[in-house]
Amino acid sequence: MKIKTDRYSKDYTKEVEKIDKKLAKLLENKEPKSLYKPCSYILQSGGKHLRAYLVLLSTKAVGGKFSQAYNAALSSEILHSFTLVHDDIMDSAEKRRGRTTLHIKYDISTAILAGDSLIAVAYKSLLKDCKINTTSILNTFNESVIEVCEGQSLDKEFEVRKDVTIPEYTNMIQKKTAALIQMCCSIGAQIGNGSKSEIKSLEKYGKNLGLAFQLKDDLLDIIGHSKDFGKNVGGDLVEGKKTFLFLKALEIAKGNDKKDLLKVVANNGIRKNQINKYKKLYEKLNILAITEKEIDRYTDIAINSLKGIDNIDVKNNLTWLANSLINRNK
Amino acid sequence: MKIKTDRYSKDYTKEVEKIDKKLAKLLENKEPKSLYKPCSYILQSGGKHLRAYLVLLSTKAVGGKFSQAYNAALSSEILHSFTLVHDDIMDSAEKRRGRTTLHIKYDISTAILAGDSLIAVAYKSLLKDCKINTTSILNTFNESVIEVCEGQSLDKEFEVRKDVTIPEYTNMIQKKTAALIQMCCSIGAQIGNGSKSEIKSLEKYGKNLGLAFQLKDDLLDIIGHSKDFGKNVGGDLVEGKKTFLFLKALEIAKGNDKKDLLKVVANNGIRKNQINKYKKLYEKLNILAITEKEIDRYTDIAINSLKGIDNIDVKNNLTWLANSLINRNK
Repeated sequence: MKIKTDRYSKDYTKEVEKIDKKLAKLLENKEPKSLYKPCSYILQSGGKHLRAYLVLLSTKAVGGKFSQAYNAALSSEILHSFTLVHDDIMDSAEKRRGRTTLHIKYDISTAILAGDSLIAVAYKSLLKDCKINTTSILNTFNESVIEVCEGQSLDKEFEVRKDVTIPEYTNMIQKKTAALIQMCCSIGAQIGNGSKSEIKSLEKYGKNLGLAFQLKDDLLDIIGHSKDFGKNVGGDLVEGKKTFLFLKALEIAKGNDKKDLLKVVANNGIRKNQINKYKKLYEKLNILAITEKEIDRYTDIAINSLKGIDNIDVKNNLTWLANSLINRNK
Repeated sequence: MKIKTDRYSKDYTKEVEKIDKKLAKLLENKEPKSLYKPCSYILQSGGKHLRAYLVLLSTKAVGGKFSQAYNAALSSEILHSFTLVHDDIMDSAEKRRGRTTLHIKYDISTAILAGDSLIAVAYKSLLKDCKINTTSILNTFNESVIEVCEGQSLDKEFEVRKDVTIPEYTNMIQKKTAALIQMCCSIGAQIGNGSKSEIKSLEKYGKNLGLAFQLKDDLLDIIGHSKDFGKNVGGDLVEGKKTFLFLKALEIAKGNDKKDLLKVVANNGIRKNQINKYKKLYEKLNILAITEKEIDRYTDIAINSLKGIDNIDVKNNLTWLANSLINRNK
């Protein structure tokens, strides 16, 4: 498997570069510059391009070719970029992928407008690859945009609610993160004219991969190194975010530990110099291991859902991708 | 023509009520409430529903029925609502149609998110009426969303630029306002399976009606009565907006008049107690009559472009609509 793994890794890197180039060219020389320069700024901020790659692999998984789905792949990254730009405004985030966020580099109005136009640009790009199943593909895409908005709305709601449960949290990240990843697999499979059961398999893969991906993100927030991660370690605790780790800790903790956790809720976060204390509390409560187990569980569901896919090579590729995502350190 | 005019007016009122009801029901009982209540708030803010009505009439103009196009008609109003919500944030507007704007009633994050989801809801609604010409209809819709964003971007750009010309202004309102109205006519005609020349005729009608409509809006800002208009008279001058009226005045004025107008540019607006002075200056320079002439010119182009439409009754209806819009006082 080692040789194949190397090949998968190289293939992914190659596609990421291709997607990067296509994103850089997309809005080149477009007028007005006041709109398209900010759009290009976010489109050229790098990233894993996981979503684009999932569109391509899903098309291939059902017997199609990458070349049928590049515009759709781009559209998923463009849509993702829109969510980043608007979320960063709402979260007052200053950094994204190590760079100044759009609304800080320009201003809030520009960032709102750039995000808005990226939605339409995403639809436009997607339509180019809709030779068949157009209505169904667009409905799938629409639903994911709606779910992303619902998820973000719940996320904001949870910031001020004090009684969020783990199932509620899971529902929120399913909408905010997993729905878009699921959509990528679905539209890829539909562009490749996959059967209903193939589409369903890939959607299930995407959804569970998305959940694992978000939990890994939550975990990295506390164990990741700032340099690799591009964000500050412990940022979720500082902001008082009710992540899986936090809610699980709250569920398990007793006595003074519970009191300490409830303080985070009451104060809407902690001070930076308290991060280590809470990290140690998580370790004491075995939260990191529990989270890893949960990530493995979702990853297993994702990988097992690929049984309905006949193409062994793409199936292995998707399995490799899932495993490498949960083993990432940034 | 009197009897017909009465009928057209009654028909329009009837359809506006229908659209209002459909908009009120659209997101009823949807979860999360934190997202859909604000969305419903803007969807239920009334308005002329000109865009929806144009979709319906355009479908009928090419031989289709209203019943084929209600979802598309709704989608145009939903899309329009999105633009209002986001524009109001960017303009720091406090009132819209006599009610508190969304970002004031809730907060900026909620308003951003409500606008975002309205875009997807609009696409979703539109897709329901795409039985034929789906790709083309969606491309038309996409392009108008992109143009609206470009127009808004230019509008923001012009706020700080001191050398805006009338052609630049016309290009801006063509994108910001007319593109969406043109799109309504186009998708209505496409849903009704109109011929290429019918679609073109209706698009030309929509575009020029949109330009006339925006100039009338600019004019009403200075001559309208606050009670009818739902905004404050002279608001554009207070904000230093470079409208057609202002740019035309600047072009014509000499000596001290010109100096007074340049002060508006230099100070990015005027004080409320100066509105009357500038209104008198506009009158002295004949700006109101010149603007009315320009509105008539665009309206004539709109009406003349209907020559390619065979259905006399719908043609008369569209003609009546154009005339009643330019004669409106709010």
